[in-house]
Order: sequence, then C-alpha cells, then structure tokens
Amino acid sequence: MTFDQLIQTTPAVDKGTQSVVLTSRIRLARNLANYSFPGWSTKAERAEVYQTIQKAVSKLPIAQTGFFEELSNYESLQKQVLVEQHLMSRELASRGEGCGLLVNKEKSLAIMINEEDHFRLQAIHSGLNLKKAYRALDKVDTQISKKLDFAYDHELGFLTSCPTNVGTGMRASVMLHLPALGLTDQIEQVLKAVSKLGLAIRGFYGEGTESLGDLYQISNQSTLGESEKEIIGRIERVVKYIATAEENARLKTLQEEPSFLFDKVSRAYGTLRYAHILSSKESLTLISLIRMGTKLGYFPEATYERCDNLTIEIQPAHLQLEAGKKLSPHERDLARAKIIARNLKNLSGPKL
Amino acid sequence: MTFDQLIQTTPAVDKGTQSVVLTSRIRLARNLANYSFPGWSTKAERAEVYQTIQKAVSKLPIAQTGFFEELSNYESLQKQVLVEQHLMSRELASRGEGCGLLVNKEKSLAIMINEEDHFRLQAIHSGLNLKKAYRALDKVDTQISKKLDFAYDHELGFLTSCPTNVGTGMRASVMLHLPALGLTDQIEQVLKAVSKLGLAIRGFYGEGTESLGDLYQISNQSTLGESEKEIIGRIERVVKYIATAEENARLKTLQEEPSFLFDKVSRAYGTLRYAHILSSKESLTLISLIRMGTKLGYFPEATYERCDNLTIEIQPAHLQLEAGKKLSPHERDLARAKIIARNLKNLSGPKL
Repeated sequence: MTFDQLIQTTPAVDKGTQSVVLTSRIRLARNLANYSFPGWSTKAERAEVYQTIQKAVSKLPIAQTGFFEELSNYESLQKQVLVEQHLMSRELASRGEGCGLLVNKEKSLAIMINEEDHFRLQAIHSGLNLKKAYRALDKVDTQISKKLDFAYDHELGFLTSCPTNVGTGMRASVMLHLPALGLTDQIEQVLKAVSKLGLAIRGFYGEGTESLGDLYQISNQSTLGESEKEIIGRIERVVKYIATAEENARLKTLQEEPSFLFDKVSRAYGTLRYAHILSSKESLTLISLIRMGTKLGYFPEATYERCDNLTIEIQPAHLQLEAGKKLSPHERDLARAKIIARNLKNLSGPKL
Repeated sequence: MTFDQLIQTTPAVDKGTQSVVLTSRIRLARNLANYSFPGWSTKAERAEVYQTIQKAVSKLPIAQTGFFEELSNYESLQKQVLVEQHLMSRELASRGEGCGLLVNKEKSLAIMINEEDHFRLQAIHSGLNLKKAYRALDKVDTQISKKLDFAYDHELGFLTSCPTNVGTGMRASVMLHLPALGLTDQIEQVLKAVSKLGLAIRGFYGEGTESLGDLYQISNQSTLGESEKEIIGRIERVVKYIATAEENARLKTLQEEPSFLFDKVSRAYGTLRYAHILSSKESLTLISLIRMGTKLGYFPEATYERCDNLTIEIQPAHLQLEAGKKLSPHERDLARAKIIARNLKNLSGPKL
C-alpha cells in the first residue's frame, strides 16, 4: 500500500454514521522486556528495538496489505496528514529515525512504534463498539506477544513509560457529538457528572485540546485495578446515559422550539456556503450543526458522509496536500471556505 | 388615489440609488395666525383649524392626484405602514380626529395637519438634493400662504410650537449609508466631527432612535439666524466631506483587505438567504452589507433596488399588511426571513 492509497481511504474514525456516538477507540500501551523504554533509550538502543519490532510486526497479517514505514521516510506534511486522520499522535509525528507506523488497509488498526512506549496499538470502530474494537486489538496484541516478550509484572500488569498507563495499558475512548446539550446549556452539567464517575472528557484532538464542533471524547482515567472488560463496561454505561440525554435534548428542542433549531442549522449552512474566509474552528462548529440537521431530516442522508469527509479535508495538512504547496494560515482559511462551499453546493439546502 | 394605490407606490425616500447619500429631505413647520397651536388647542378649535386647512389644501394641485384623509379614517395598521414609509411621524400616527395627512402621487411631498404644528410639510428626493427638495416644498408653501395667514414674526420668523423650530421652521436632513466607516472603526470620529459643526446625527427613524443598517441621518440643529439657503449649503458641504470619507474607506478596505470585505458581504448574503428567524435589526444590518456589496460589484445592479424595497417590506406593519392579519413578534421574524429569502433567491449570489 502506498502513502497515496492510504490517504485516499476514508479513515475509520470518521465513518461515524451513528447519531450521537461517532466512534469507539481502544489503545494499548506495550513495551518489550529487557530494553530501555523509548524515553530512556539511546539512539542505538532505539534503532535496535525498531529492528526487532519491525521484524516481528512485518509478518503480521495486517502488515501484508497495510502501510508500514519508518518515520524518517515521511515528509513533514505527510505526518501532519496522518495526525489529522487520528492515525498518528502529534508526539510520534515530531520524531524520525527509529520510530515507525503500521496502518492496516481499512485504517481501523494502527501500531505506533517507539512513541512514548515501544508499542502503541490502536483500534477504531464506528458507533458505540468498544468491545468489537477491543477484540480486534486483542487479536493483534496476542499475535505480537507470541513473537516478542512484553514488559509485564504479575502484581501490576503491563509496564509503561507513564505510570498512569500501568496495568491494562489500555485507554478506551468514545467520540460523542453533543450539539443539543450545548444548545440547551446542559453540557457543563454533563461534563461534571462524567468526571465524578472517574472518566475523562476532552476535545476533538485528545488531551489538552478545546472542544470543537460539539465533539467530545470520553475515556477511562485509570488503568489499574480493573480488568479491560470492567473498564469498557463502565464507559459504555456512561456513554449510553449521555447519548440518551443528547437525544432527549434534541427531541425536546425540536418539539418546543422547532424553528429555533432549524434556524440554527440553516444559518450554519448559509455561512458555510457563502463565507469566503473560514477558520478550522468555525468550520467544525458549523459542520457539527449540519451533521445534527441531517439527523433531524433537514438534509438528505448523504450530507452526513459529506460532513465526515469535510471534517478531515479542511484540516491544515490536508488543505496543503490538496493545494500541492505550503499555505499561510490566511490562504488555508480561503482554501477551506472554497472546499466547503463546493461540497455543499452539490447537496440540496435545508428543508423543514 | 386609494390607500392601496398609495401603499403600492415605492416611497421616494427609498429610491436611493446613490452610493452613499441615499435621500435628502426638507421639512417645514408652519402655523396659522390667530389660532392656538395644536398642543394648546381644544378639541373644537382643532376641528375648526382642520376644516380651515382642509378647505385650502384640498385645492392644491398635489391634492388633486394625491391621497388626503383625516386620521380618524385610518386603521391603526395603515398608520403604521405610513410611518414605516417615512410619510407620517409616530406622533401623528398616535392621533385621530382633527388631524390629517396629504401625500402626493409620487410620495415625494407630504403634509401633516395638526401634528406638533398646524402644518408639517415634507419633501424628499433621492441622492444629495436638498436644494431640489427645498424648491418643491417652497412652491407648496407659497401656494398655501396665498390662501392662509401663517403665524409670523418680523424679528423671529415663523412661529412654531417648539422653540427649536422658530425662524425658518426648516429641518433639512440627509440619509447616509456608511458601512465602510463602520467596518473600519472610523464612524465614532466622524459622528463627533459632525456634532461639533452644529449638525445633528441620528439613526434610521429619526430622533432618539439607534442607527440600524449603517444608516445615519444628518440634519441642522438650529433654525434661527441663518437663511434656508445658508443652512442647506452648510449641510451639503459636511455631507460631501463624509461621503468622500466613506468612499475612501471602501476603496482602502477593498485594496488592502479585499477578501475581508467580500467575506463580510458574502456571509451576510448566506445568513439572509438561509436564516429562518430574522429580527428587523439584524435584517437591516445585513441588507446594508448587501447594498454596499452591490456598489462594489459583487451583485447585479438590480440587487440595489431589491434592497431598497426589502428595507420597507420587512417592517412590522408591512409584514402584517402582507399577511392580512396581526402577527406576534416571533411570527414577524419568521415572515421576515421568508420574504428576504424569496427575494434573494431570484438574484444571483455574490461574485468576487
């Protein structure tokens, strides 16, 4: 698989056709026994680890049809594109030699090598599907563990660079689309409740990022003292509760103030179609409203997929890849507006 | 002329096809000698004055083809429509028996009877045309003065109910459209300069109203110690200065930030076309941007006239007249958005 083929595949993370829960993701952190963890290793050790891992990983079934490269073979823009597709962390993108990325053909599985840990395995599925994502990842994890020895302590579990990952090494997260809770000013309350339940809630691009486009990521905070199954079960219960709250808020607003909701969505469409300068932040917020409007029946069903693709295509690196050159922030805002207008033009406008 | 015919004529005040100076208006205050002024007169006196004036005025040439009614013959909605067309003051609209309105066929001349003064004569012309408006009004004034004696003092000039009108009894005003001075934050400075020159500057509906849609009315503050010609000359000089400032601001913005201006205008179009709920205030502000955009060549020329008509058609009384029933503020916001969208749909969108 070439890089171009990889890029042209719609990322699994953005195939969210569900109403509220867009995607479910599982990440596992693993390290090799008998080697320094990446943060403490010398260049030579890192290269040795990479060789060892590469040998084992390139024999995995997903590597046969997927994409596998060492980081030093990427251009900086290509790395940014993969970050925007949620296949690579910003941290890995800042690295080069001795680090690598394997992505399966469907982009539903990714393995980062020598990021914070020797292995960061990731599986993504659309909708509320943490169990399915975990099963897919567990399979790859088992395949690797048959070839390589993981750093493991019988008291603590898997050992990781950061103590917050020790134990299962698992971070299970769910991306939620909560526009109606935002519109009805209930979102703060929900966020508070979630953090009291020992779960973390964050914006679109993970830790430390602001929420964009009413997208929220919910994940487990602790990895110790609970089994993978227990963690996943807890998150799914909370997510189902939030999803119901969001659906109720949509229904309630729709019943009580139908024209208010339609006005919001329809204005978002008008701005997206006619703005000449659009920031990433504003675009995502407005696209979020179109997404909700599609679920409410204001737009044809196909609009949803268009929104999914746009969410990725309007990111900085994607815009520059498309333009074939480096663009200033202002040029990106112009290019973004153009792409969005072009995409919306071919879809019918909002109808009540 | 029937009321329906009157309503269907586009008001002269809104035929502003000029770029910056939309309309010029002259108003003269006159009172009959030997009668109490309206504020001090009894009901019987007011009726007697009305009879006297009616007899004289109905013989005027403009009365032959125009519209002339006593206020008690109007429905409240009809009065509101005339207020929105700038043919009747809010003050006159609140009155009934013993008060009247005469409007000529072209709506360029109006005579209010028993408002604050016995006579309030008004002439409107498009563009910067105070002299032409004054000549038209002076002609009617002379015709009336041949039939009736005005209250006049050889020291002071014409006597009026409010001392601020004594002398010429004239208020000359010009409606300016100043969006670029607003966008470039120069408007406050201009407003200050104008008031230092002894002129008043006010919003869309005259004294005490906020500026809407970047429309400003400039008029003389004093009526005493200067001839009509001097007052008009002074206003025209100031207005020409402001118009140049506005035109320069448009050019400068267009040269330095062309995409900024186009973005502003194009977004306004998007919102007007797709909003489902539109207040009067927001509509006027956005229509103002479309107006400017038309002058900048973003829209076909015909858009300008469409904006002129819309400015009137979206006013509360006009919306209710069109709907044929009383509408709540929310219903008006819905109806307003519908009318605007329908009007813009048939015109081509913004083009850079």
